[in-house]
Amino acid sequence: MNVLVINCGSSSLKFQLINSDTEQVLAKGLCERIGIDGSLTYQPEGGEKVKSDKPMPTHTEAIQYVIDALTDAGTGVVKSLDEIGAVGHRVVHGGEKFASSVVITDEVLQAIEECNDLAPLHNPANLIGINACQKLMPGTPMVAVFDTAFHQTMPEEAYMYGLPYEYYEKYKVRRYGFHGTSHSFVSKRAAEIVGKPYEELRTIVCHLGNGASICAVKNGRSVDTSMGLTPLEGLVMGTRSGDIDPAIMEFIAKKEGLDIAGLMNMLNKKSGVLGLSNNLSSDFRDLDAGAKEGNKQAAVALKVFAYRVAKYVGAYAAAMNGVDVIAFTAGVGENSGPVRADVLGYLGYLGIEVDEEANNTRGEEITISTPDSKVKVMVIPTNEELAIARETVALV
Amino acid sequence: MNVLVINCGSSSLKFQLINSDTEQVLAKGLCERIGIDGSLTYQPEGGEKVKSDKPMPTHTEAIQYVIDALTDAGTGVVKSLDEIGAVGHRVVHGGEKFASSVVITDEVLQAIEECNDLAPLHNPANLIGINACQKLMPGTPMVAVFDTAFHQTMPEEAYMYGLPYEYYEKYKVRRYGFHGTSHSFVSKRAAEIVGKPYEELRTIVCHLGNGASICAVKNGRSVDTSMGLTPLEGLVMGTRSGDIDPAIMEFIAKKEGLDIAGLMNMLNKKSGVLGLSNNLSSDFRDLDAGAKEGNKQAAVALKVFAYRVAKYVGAYAAAMNGVDVIAFTAGVGENSGPVRADVLGYLGYLGIEVDEEANNTRGEEITISTPDSKVKVMVIPTNEELAIARETVALV
Repeated sequence: MNVLVINCGSSSLKFQLINSDTEQVLAKGLCERIGIDGSLTYQPEGGEKVKSDKPMPTHTEAIQYVIDALTDAGTGVVKSLDEIGAVGHRVVHGGEKFASSVVITDEVLQAIEECNDLAPLHNPANLIGINACQKLMPGTPMVAVFDTAFHQTMPEEAYMYGLPYEYYEKYKVRRYGFHGTSHSFVSKRAAEIVGKPYEELRTIVCHLGNGASICAVKNGRSVDTSMGLTPLEGLVMGTRSGDIDPAIMEFIAKKEGLDIAGLMNMLNKKSGVLGLSNNLSSDFRDLDAGAKEGNKQAAVALKVFAYRVAKYVGAYAAAMNGVDVIAFTAGVGENSGPVRADVLGYLGYLGIEVDEEANNTRGEEITISTPDSKVKVMVIPTNEELAIARETVALV
Repeated sequence: MNVLVINCGSSSLKFQLINSDTEQVLAKGLCERIGIDGSLTYQPEGGEKVKSDKPMPTHTEAIQYVIDALTDAGTGVVKSLDEIGAVGHRVVHGGEKFASSVVITDEVLQAIEECNDLAPLHNPANLIGINACQKLMPGTPMVAVFDTAFHQTMPEEAYMYGLPYEYYEKYKVRRYGFHGTSHSFVSKRAAEIVGKPYEELRTIVCHLGNGASICAVKNGRSVDTSMGLTPLEGLVMGTRSGDIDPAIMEFIAKKEGLDIAGLMNMLNKKSGVLGLSNNLSSDFRDLDAGAKEGNKQAAVALKVFAYRVAKYVGAYAAAMNGVDVIAFTAGVGENSGPVRADVLGYLGYLGIEVDEEANNTRGEEITISTPDSKVKVMVIPTNEELAIARETVALV
């Protein structure tokens, strides 16, 4: 079956058409500046990437252009919409309502809307994408795949904050975690690689991209993860602060005359390695280059980043009373041997031995621990679109 | 030498007179409600504790009553002020200016005042106590012992937050850590007990009281600690939240109509195990009793508390690439076998084996790991006053 995978933001829309039998990507692309002016980037398998301006007042026009491109007589990859068997939609927040992917019905749409409160920037955009798709592809089954669902297995000692209990009762303030599709995909693949049952492994997945999170997967279930109510908590990220003393917010608010919205903007957009590097860059390649050229703040940003990852790995080894596999994924995790080496440099006490040559490879699936290493360490490229396609096919 | 140890709050003042040769407490007590009405609680060694109302418009009167009591012909323990060789003052925040205790001079007072910004509730009160003491004991040398000083050895990857670098440059926003006197005292004692050089041990100190923090001490130096810019960060405490997603502050502010001051009050006074237990108690004895009677939220509060401690221990094992000794101290750490057992239950992967019978003792110095345990685990009652007296004597 061909599955159209949609990841819809407020003014953008990413898509892939995946043949679920061969798991080949038939075509992929991106709509940008929806509601402003609009452009479509489209690339069929083996073909060239073409970007063209298209008026996109709403997401409905954007999706119509995607369908037109996919079915185009020249560069299209299917003859008609009939050849698209299902649509898989990424939805950011499923709250406590969704512990797994689900076929979209009116009730499901209602329940997703009830989670908007928890992800006011993301869920409404996801819903707009679903609605536009339903209008243009009325007979095609659609599935919602949630970033949070995989983490719904966390025990309460992991998801409860040390806050007044009434905030959990009234507003469902708790740890949810994100990147669940990636953590699930990578931890399952790790079990395949080591050749042991997924249900019997303790795996720590380090999803290190511009957004970054770590997940402890014990016996096939997420038992803790570093992002929380929102994707701001946890690791130091590209532009997000991750963990801070909450009292810093009051301190900075007074010093800088910021209100809470101003603080949130600073913590989400001006912090992380960008802030630590004194605004050099949120891109690790720039930081690497800067550190090599003697930029002290770039070096500090890299050190802080790796140290925080190592501390979370240590914390999750405690959470699971040990660890069998550590997997690195996403942009930085897949491509930066130096970051991986810095993280693993702290972890010798777990019996980890690094194969330095293997660790110098970029972007491919590879085991980077030695055969004698007590903990297997590997790089596993994530593929959230493929994971969404698999979830979708399994349900329709 | 007899050393008067003073811990001065905004309306209270705790004191101990310690003979630094024998390390005996000659007398101790407490002034309360300074500036309101005033009362003195005084207890000489081996004598009865007596509480009496005394007018204390300022800290100067409070300290005069302390001196009167210590030199009283009946219940006093010294004949005159001449028998008090030095005064050791606890000072909460030494910022980056003080990496060790220091003899108080005018320059030192000025520098402490410059740290007021970082501890606006505590440092001004500490300074008032010092000034009052200097007025009444003009010839007696005085030493400032800082809660933060021990942690000034942290490397920058541990003390830098993922925030815009300018906040560090302009306002010195960074991790400072607290309970330094206790972490130093307990980690040194741990080295004595295991009979290895302090400079060659990796120790994790769990200071678990109503305020709680954990410290990683590597080769005699604090390399990380869970409290941060302020004592709010880190573990779930009696009434403090510890670590949360910073975005929760915006979420709760909107839902509850709170401003930042209101949020800080909630996070400092209504959170922690008190909040988690749905306002049952911040006292672990009440939570234990509640959990035994089937109060689900009391049980959850205890589980979350222990889980967070275990995660920090795991993180600091990573920070030091291993751990040799884990020491529990302060009210809960010294007295609660069940909390210690819950924490250690996560840590078998470190090669820890618990001596359950030893762990059932309360409030005494004892090793609670088995002889075969790869990591030595012990209970070490803290004694911040004695530590301050020792620091003081070493400097005068």
